[in-house]
Amino acid sequence: MPPSVRPITDPALSPRMTDARAPMLREIEILDEYGARRRIHIPAERPLTVFVDKRELVTLMTLGASPEMLVLGYLRNQRLVPDLAAVESITVDWDVGAAAVRTREGIADLEQRTARRVVTTGCGQGTVFGDLMDQVGALRLPGPELARIRQGTLAGLLEVIRQQDSIHRKAGSVHGCALFRGTELLCFVEDVGRHNAIDTIAGWMWLHGVDGADKVFYTTGRLTSEMVMKAAHMGVPIVVSRNGVTHMGHELATRLGMTLFGRAANKHFLCYCGAERFDSEPIPEPASVRVVAGG
Amino acid sequence: MPPSVRPITDPALSPRMTDARAPMLREIEILDEYGARRRIHIPAERPLTVFVDKRELVTLMTLGASPEMLVLGYLRNQRLVPDLAAVESITVDWDVGAAAVRTREGIADLEQRTARRVVTTGCGQGTVFGDLMDQVGALRLPGPELARIRQGTLAGLLEVIRQQDSIHRKAGSVHGCALFRGTELLCFVEDVGRHNAIDTIAGWMWLHGVDGADKVFYTTGRLTSEMVMKAAHMGVPIVVSRNGVTHMGHELATRLGMTLFGRAANKHFLCYCGAERFDSEPIPEPASVRVVAGG
Repeated sequence: MPPSVRPITDPALSPRMTDARAPMLREIEILDEYGARRRIHIPAERPLTVFVDKRELVTLMTLGASPEMLVLGYLRNQRLVPDLAAVESITVDWDVGAAAVRTREGIADLEQRTARRVVTTGCGQGTVFGDLMDQVGALRLPGPELARIRQGTLAGLLEVIRQQDSIHRKAGSVHGCALFRGTELLCFVEDVGRHNAIDTIAGWMWLHGVDGADKVFYTTGRLTSEMVMKAAHMGVPIVVSRNGVTHMGHELATRLGMTLFGRAANKHFLCYCGAERFDSEPIPEPASVRVVAGG
Repeated sequence: MPPSVRPITDPALSPRMTDARAPMLREIEILDEYGARRRIHIPAERPLTVFVDKRELVTLMTLGASPEMLVLGYLRNQRLVPDLAAVESITVDWDVGAAAVRTREGIADLEQRTARRVVTTGCGQGTVFGDLMDQVGALRLPGPELARIRQGTLAGLLEVIRQQDSIHRKAGSVHGCALFRGTELLCFVEDVGRHNAIDTIAGWMWLHGVDGADKVFYTTGRLTSEMVMKAAHMGVPIVVSRNGVTHMGHELATRLGMTLFGRAANKHFLCYCGAERFDSEPIPEPASVRVVAGG
């Protein structure tokens, strides 16, 4: 965790967690289009079956970068635990591909709450349990007077991402998510699915008591309804994607009063909605035009 | 359906299906990085709740291009119905966002068979029910003596895709899948998730009695374990992706004896495994080199 982030969480209430590691890259031999042999790296992908109080909940396919944070964020984003204090421990064992979650009080209606299945457009955790979409009304994001972003800040943020060392650069085929305060990168996560990545960041925010109100969330993935909803649940008012937006993602963000940027790379981006938080700068006048104007 | 595909299915055994349509593009106003207003198109994304014999099964988030084929392919790829003849009708009503499936005999153990939840890296239908992965041993793909592909054919296939008119070209943020015989495009599907797209193709193949043995499956999405498994279940031995591969996708394809191509665009691609089906051509000697060699 960067020093700039001050945990506001009582350590006594933080869950005990393992720090399970597993290799994230595999090297394979391939043939190129001319039949020439080459060795390249590809990202790992491994199943992690989550047990909550000894009951099997779900199996996540993951790169395995930070499984404990992933599980914590998954429980958070699926609204399965009310707060960090409800989680006693998360124990990940890659030998058996299992994450054992112990809660302090148990989850009374776990079966019932995970019964409805919604399969979404999300890369990765394409499942949100039924009640996730029922909470739009309850969500309040900080207004433009509290949360804004300048064009230059967003361009700087994109440059930080561009220079970030990553699995994607080495092997491709993963999605990246990041949490920023201005151009300060607080947390960067990659996974084989963008939902794993955003959930891992949600877990990291919970564990370190990081509030979303003054943050910007970045993702390489598309802004579908579920991604927008998860960012809203994390309290982040400004969301940036290297990719595009779907109609439901746009509609939901508009209803939530969220600011969405897409197609964001190399200093260029589009503001899809929530432009009241965006301080754009006028297009710089080309030198040639100035000369003509002066002539 | 292109005339080149001869249905081998008895029409009497084909399910009765609606042909529900819904707009696939929405126009929205955006600001660019300089604050200039522009109107762009974004893809639709709408929930489709699938009921099988009046029991709610799942809600799919979809572009809505061919919902009946999507539902049929979903039932097929999830192994919920044994064959096309088991499905009596599929009725899609966008006003209520519902797809009503009637089976001829019912599905006895539907509850039990859909109980286990596996959340995968898939864009879109990131849920495979438990038994999907248990069938690797049972799958037999045609060997290299029956199914091969030349470098030139693959390059030609990629050119057909490049020239294909698509939602992606107009609005981005969708995945595309296609089924080819050589360079002949048989079926092209786009959806907000790559799993919706491949399932729609699986439904189309079932409905028209199209066998996968002599076909090539193309996807814009990453080759994760689930995509490989679905292609194998469709009987397609050669799979091409514009994107990359994960370790489990590679491992599974290797075990299945499937041929995987990735990073496939603009005449370039990598053969990840199953190279015995790939007839490469040597790299053309650059003119400059010939001149030097002749000097």
